[in-house]
Amino acid sequence: MTPRRADAERNRTKLLDSARALFAAPGDAPSMAEIARHAGVGMATLYRNFPSREALLEALYVDEADAVVAAAETVEGDTAGERFVAWLHHFFAFYNGKHEVGDELLRGADGVPELMDASKHRVLAAGGPLLEAAQAAGDIRADLSLEQALTMVVAVAKIPGDPDFLAPILQTTLDGLRRV
Amino acid sequence: MTPRRADAERNRTKLLDSARALFAAPGDAPSMAEIARHAGVGMATLYRNFPSREALLEALYVDEADAVVAAAETVEGDTAGERFVAWLHHFFAFYNGKHEVGDELLRGADGVPELMDASKHRVLAAGGPLLEAAQAAGDIRADLSLEQALTMVVAVAKIPGDPDFLAPILQTTLDGLRRV
Repeated sequence: MTPRRADAERNRTKLLDSARALFAAPGDAPSMAEIARHAGVGMATLYRNFPSREALLEALYVDEADAVVAAAETVEGDTAGERFVAWLHHFFAFYNGKHEVGDELLRGADGVPELMDASKHRVLAAGGPLLEAAQAAGDIRADLSLEQALTMVVAVAKIPGDPDFLAPILQTTLDGLRRV
Repeated sequence: MTPRRADAERNRTKLLDSARALFAAPGDAPSMAEIARHAGVGMATLYRNFPSREALLEALYVDEADAVVAAAETVEGDTAGERFVAWLHHFFAFYNGKHEVGDELLRGADGVPELMDASKHRVLAAGGPLLEAAQAAGDIRADLSLEQALTMVVAVAKIPGDPDFLAPILQTTLDGLRRV
């Protein structure tokens, strides 16, 4: 990577990190100017990286889906069941921090459902082997598919309320996944 | 009760039963004419019992909340934990069959949030002793309030999908309530 390329990459990462943090914070969705300010870059740099707000949101969405997919390879735990549940925590954080992004994208332009569908398929493909291993080991109940487990986690992530209110609800649902 | 009064009561019950069944069925929300036809009564009888669609929906809502409140006294189970979980199944059926009614009511006129709030308070008051007994007996985890347990069940009830898809998700969340 040339120094200039590395620089551009750093700016892109800073902008996505800022957008992620600002979208996760309470209150209204952040403006482009707020995102640039938080990242410490000028508007020209912001628009060089992301020609439109939608381009930024799409990049953010894909970036976070990438992180969930990557986490399937790196999650730690003593058992297959613990690794699967640890991965569901990643997925929860992904979804919980970002459903505003998804909602705004859905109100936006064409091609977005395809983007989300593609992300969903990648996430399902990444998590499938984790669930299979955990079910084969007898750690996780066998009567649930990955789609059902993820749907359950999404349902919890959509509950309005602060993290203290949500945490025991999420924990309850994840404890319920243990083999009975 | 005079015969005439008993007759009116029967018609009212038939109309509410029909409205409940038709709202729970897939497809569009039923019209007043469809509800009358299903109940086997004329439109005059329908409007004598419920002067407006909103009056019917409100009565339906209150009627089902009454059933959930009453169930708190009658649920069966060998342990306090089983009785609490059995009651949550009633609550799930109440909410799952009826959130379209609630949505339509919320799009409607004044006074509805108060009605729902009052129902919520009655449901919380009815379920509180069941949860307390189950937690005191060590059957149900202690880190969840009744509001959190009901919120969790509502989140599952809101998941789109057929009953076969939802049933193991609900079961997973309820299994998670067992003391860990």
